Amino acid sequence: MEGRATASTPAALPYYVAFSQLLGLTLVAMTGAWLGLYRGGIAWESDLQFNVHPLCMAIGLIFLQGDALLVYRVFRNEAKRTTKVLHGLLHVFALIIALVGLVAVFDYHRKKGYADLYSLHSWCGILVFVLYFVQWLVGFSFFLFPGASFSLRSRYRASHVFFGATIFLLSVGTALLGLKEALLFKLGAKYSLFEPEGVLANVLGLLLACFGGVVLYILTRPDWKRPSQAEEQALSMDFKTLTEGDSPGSQ
Amino acid sequence: MEGRATASTPAALPYYVAFSQLLGLTLVAMTGAWLGLYRGGIAWESDLQFNVHPLCMAIGLIFLQGDALLVYRVFRNEAKRTTKVLHGLLHVFALIIALVGLVAVFDYHRKKGYADLYSLHSWCGILVFVLYFVQWLVGFSFFLFPGASFSLRSRYRASHVFFGATIFLLSVGTALLGLKEALLFKLGAKYSLFEPEGVLANVLGLLLACFGGVVLYILTRPDWKRPSQAEEQALSMDFKTLTEGDSPGSQ
Repeated sequence: MEGRATASTPAALPYYVAFSQLLGLTLVAMTGAWLGLYRGGIAWESDLQFNVHPLCMAIGLIFLQGDALLVYRVFRNEAKRTTKVLHGLLHVFALIIALVGLVAVFDYHRKKGYADLYSLHSWCGILVFVLYFVQWLVGFSFFLFPGASFSLRSRYRASHVFFGATIFLLSVGTALLGLKEALLFKLGAKYSLFEPEGVLANVLGLLLACFGGVVLYILTRPDWKRPSQAEEQALSMDFKTLTEGDSPGSQ
Repeated sequence: MEGRATASTPAALPYYVAFSQLLGLTLVAMTGAWLGLYRGGIAWESDLQFNVHPLCMAIGLIFLQGDALLVYRVFRNEAKRTTKVLHGLLHVFALIIALVGLVAVFDYHRKKGYADLYSLHSWCGILVFVLYFVQWLVGFSFFLFPGASFSLRSRYRASHVFFGATIFLLSVGTALLGLKEALLFKLGAKYSLFEPEGVLANVLGLLLACFGGVVLYILTRPDWKRPSQAEEQALSMDFKTLTEGDSPGSQ
């Protein structure tokens, strides 16, 4: 693009990324199938409003959030700033879709007169939302907003990556709790009779856990990190920011 | 011990380790309190046999498994072989205690005539057991049994660490599913009335997630890894094994 040398992509990485996308799309499709086959489908202005919640969360807080984490592994030779913007945008889409899912369940509870925020699923869910929003705001301030110094960015980077992965894993755990809750409230003791809905939802749960595991594997393989020439280019861009008015001593 | 230089422990590490132990002991105590206060306590030869299951899993597959992962961060200057043996032993204790918990629930189901392995919790639980057992066997063969070559150990090490952390996180997720299942089967719609048992179990769930998060944080901080002089000593020990009859070219 700008005369830089391009680094080769590790041989196995594309297969793992493809597998993660297959898992992610399958789990979204299976969530849709579960809601369509056993829960009457989806609508906003009826009892089906509840079903907007699991579908939005599967798309936003699982699939899109997972993909946002993979951006730096997939786009290895593009300009760092382009990759950053894509990473930030995918998280914004994930957050907006998840917010629709959140409004759906609160609105449904209000119309039905059900209590809010009593279950472990809801407590974990609120925790995920707060952490996700704070992580996005802090990430934006440090990495996309031009004010943060190079040293500050470097020091924050490791925490950003750790909390990003942790929030994603907590999202997967929260989705599993929600799935279990939805199953037990409807099936009760019939769950033990291997009802088709129960088996389908169990498989969906395993898919959720596998998607989390594969994304984590791709993220944590040290030799699959974005190659150093791209990092070095970013470093020079950061130094450019630094010399254009940022204070090296700022905290 | 053997005239080696000892590396200093990172300043914040002991506080994080102490916090993880506080969380771990509190979650074990709170599991005991939950079973004692709301489930009639624990016994083998009665309906209380079921309660052996959550307590054994909290001690074995959560607390002891988590601590086994932390061994290399806590014992930084001891001989590598001693640390390895401690790591392996803690995992053996965890596995034995978890097996007692597994036998308890299957025996309880058999006596009551309940179905086995129909729930997402049980599917995830069996997956954890199989992976944990395989990981232990493969880990033992590579790292404690003197037959594996140095290069083979090095190549396997990263996978061992990744799968160790993943199995631990899957154990935490499975425990959350089990907790939710136990709550919903007993409380049902009363869960939404903020019953004391429900609130206590939700707090226990958050403690489980926090313990998982703190252990993961300690494990993944690159500057908290076991210092290189200890690694180098281990390397020379491995070379000793290598020169005493192991083939460098062996797979």
